[in-house]
Amino acid sequence: MAAERTQVVIVGAGPAGMLLSHLLAADGVESVVVETRSEAYVAARIRAGILEQSSVDLLTEVGLGDRLAREADRHRGIYLQWPEERHHLDFVDLVGRAVYVYGQTEVQRDLIDARRAAGQVVHYEVSDTALHDIESERPSVTFTDAEGRPRQVVADAIVGCDGSFGPSRAAIPARESWERTYPYSWFGILADVAPSTDELIYAWHPDGFALHSMRSEKVSRFYLQVPNGTDPATWSDDQIWDALAARLGHGQNGWSLQPGPITDRSVLPMRSHVSTPMRHGRLFLAGDAAHIVPPTGAKGLNLAVADVALLAPALTALLAGDSRLADGYSETALRRVWRCTHFSWWMTTMLHTAEDPFDAQLQLSQLRWVTSSRHAAAGLAENYAGLPIGF
Amino acid sequence: MAAERTQVVIVGAGPAGMLLSHLLAADGVESVVVETRSEAYVAARIRAGILEQSSVDLLTEVGLGDRLAREADRHRGIYLQWPEERHHLDFVDLVGRAVYVYGQTEVQRDLIDARRAAGQVVHYEVSDTALHDIESERPSVTFTDAEGRPRQVVADAIVGCDGSFGPSRAAIPARESWERTYPYSWFGILADVAPSTDELIYAWHPDGFALHSMRSEKVSRFYLQVPNGTDPATWSDDQIWDALAARLGHGQNGWSLQPGPITDRSVLPMRSHVSTPMRHGRLFLAGDAAHIVPPTGAKGLNLAVADVALLAPALTALLAGDSRLADGYSETALRRVWRCTHFSWWMTTMLHTAEDPFDAQLQLSQLRWVTSSRHAAAGLAENYAGLPIGF
Repeated sequence: MAAERTQVVIVGAGPAGMLLSHLLAADGVESVVVETRSEAYVAARIRAGILEQSSVDLLTEVGLGDRLAREADRHRGIYLQWPEERHHLDFVDLVGRAVYVYGQTEVQRDLIDARRAAGQVVHYEVSDTALHDIESERPSVTFTDAEGRPRQVVADAIVGCDGSFGPSRAAIPARESWERTYPYSWFGILADVAPSTDELIYAWHPDGFALHSMRSEKVSRFYLQVPNGTDPATWSDDQIWDALAARLGHGQNGWSLQPGPITDRSVLPMRSHVSTPMRHGRLFLAGDAAHIVPPTGAKGLNLAVADVALLAPALTALLAGDSRLADGYSETALRRVWRCTHFSWWMTTMLHTAEDPFDAQLQLSQLRWVTSSRHAAAGLAENYAGLPIGF
Repeated sequence: MAAERTQVVIVGAGPAGMLLSHLLAADGVESVVVETRSEAYVAARIRAGILEQSSVDLLTEVGLGDRLAREADRHRGIYLQWPEERHHLDFVDLVGRAVYVYGQTEVQRDLIDARRAAGQVVHYEVSDTALHDIESERPSVTFTDAEGRPRQVVADAIVGCDGSFGPSRAAIPARESWERTYPYSWFGILADVAPSTDELIYAWHPDGFALHSMRSEKVSRFYLQVPNGTDPATWSDDQIWDALAARLGHGQNGWSLQPGPITDRSVLPMRSHVSTPMRHGRLFLAGDAAHIVPPTGAKGLNLAVADVALLAPALTALLAGDSRLADGYSETALRRVWRCTHFSWWMTTMLHTAEDPFDAQLQLSQLRWVTSSRHAAAGLAENYAGLPIGF
């Protein structure tokens, strides 16, 4: 097996890995990407749908903003509601930043197109991925390629963008991790129907949380809080629409929910997880490989973008002999990671129905405060619309 | 037993009851106050020490502000700290309002002096207090007076300012209550030593929360988070000062804690409790009779002041034949009660060490946010310095 050579091996071709290869290439740094899934699988998986202002600014700066500018739907804020009351938070008014509805599938497609046009080497459908010599200056990754051939790529650095279950995180010795699981899941539904709202509706309801999101002018996205272990097949379409209508307030204050054909349904468990450090020797972690947030508040994809935005210049400098940014990467990245971990936990625990009736009153009191105090509203807005990269 | 007659019977001669009798008298409404404890006991019990701007404004407006203006120590804000970091939040700068160090004992003394000067009838050391006919327009209170005589006072309304354990709350049928207990208590210490700080220090520490407060230029007040059931006698003075020094950061960044003779020590359990409604028929509740908050954030006394500030005009109007404010009292008061209940819970859970290491990271992330984001800092400040009365 002849060893191949590159500057950076990136494990994982999701948005974190592909954006990193793009940013490194812009700095003249060569990379090889390896991915266990197929390109079609990676391109199709449905994940996040909201980009922070900072993420949009970054993607635009590095030439990935053309289709985004045409197709993304700019939202000034969100709606927060509870029975009989719906309030709009205007992030642009509160903190001068907006959010954008643009699915992770779209970001991924833009990245795949851009990297293909640039001749980026991406090995899809690899197996047996293993990391070696990460404490040396010549770490390597071995894997079996799609054709069944054993391969080795030697590099100056490895970046693990391979999510919670990839081999990168496990390759860091003496790591510390924090985890929180939640006693509920999100039942996610895609429907071929125009959204019944112009911006996202986050709804607190005694039956459980509901979220009205959207993918396009013709496709709506909904989420319902359900108990862990719920089988999506056990809910009829009518049950789903009835639950959404009740929780989202169909018929209240003249608002109505328009149902439509359900094209996709899945149940997502929710957890918070942070693993530290995010760097060991010449191995760096970014995105889900280092941290998982529950989806409330839409931080996951944006946090991955923020990680690689810090990491690309750090790696470029490291390869040029200056290790200062690389040495500070883990600590710097973790500041934002913990901010977003806290915010995601806060949004989650404010909106999801819990067992204790005291908690319900705390939630309602907090919702009233967030929708009536400009300070509280701006606090939510600055987190939701995203702190500047490098915070 | 001949029935005496007044307009309002107030059960409880703590700050809520005595301030209410003062406010009613200013509106020309006559009241009788009954209290199970002695005047000396009520005057001496050590409780809260921080007045919100709104409380000070109210006390001043109604002629109770002379000594307060001379002796209260105006604080622009508080310090929030965790190991190696101390940050000042300037409430005046953030939200235009200050807080005042002026003990509940002082407020009580001012109230006792003012009511005595005005000839207010206060029956101390009564027993067997019972409420009657609260659903009628002629409710009454019976009790045995200090001399052992059975007494009855008939009135147009009764106000229960008799705390958690008094008979008033229990007299409301079909009430709903919410409660949260906490897995820790406050070990409170009074010491004859000048405060080592100009404003309160709220300290997060892995060993547990600590608070450096003060009563005067010569008397310091300290609190240590301890397990429930802690016997204060089991701590030596040295252990107390060592724990305070460690948690408050003695020796960090040039700051030192000055110990002194400990003159009082007690352990306070912490709980949140809200009972609704706050009115049934001609019985109204105010202060601790309706709600208890943990002491973090100093809301208890201030919330009692806000209750009676709403209640006095409502009763005055009711007695003049207009029941609108009285009918709205419970709902209006509960808005502030839940805001303060949430804030007190939030301050408590942000600062007290919990079992779960994930919680510790959330706390630190939140503390960093509150001390670095102006929006977050202002959110804390507007709650701590107090929302306007009637909010």
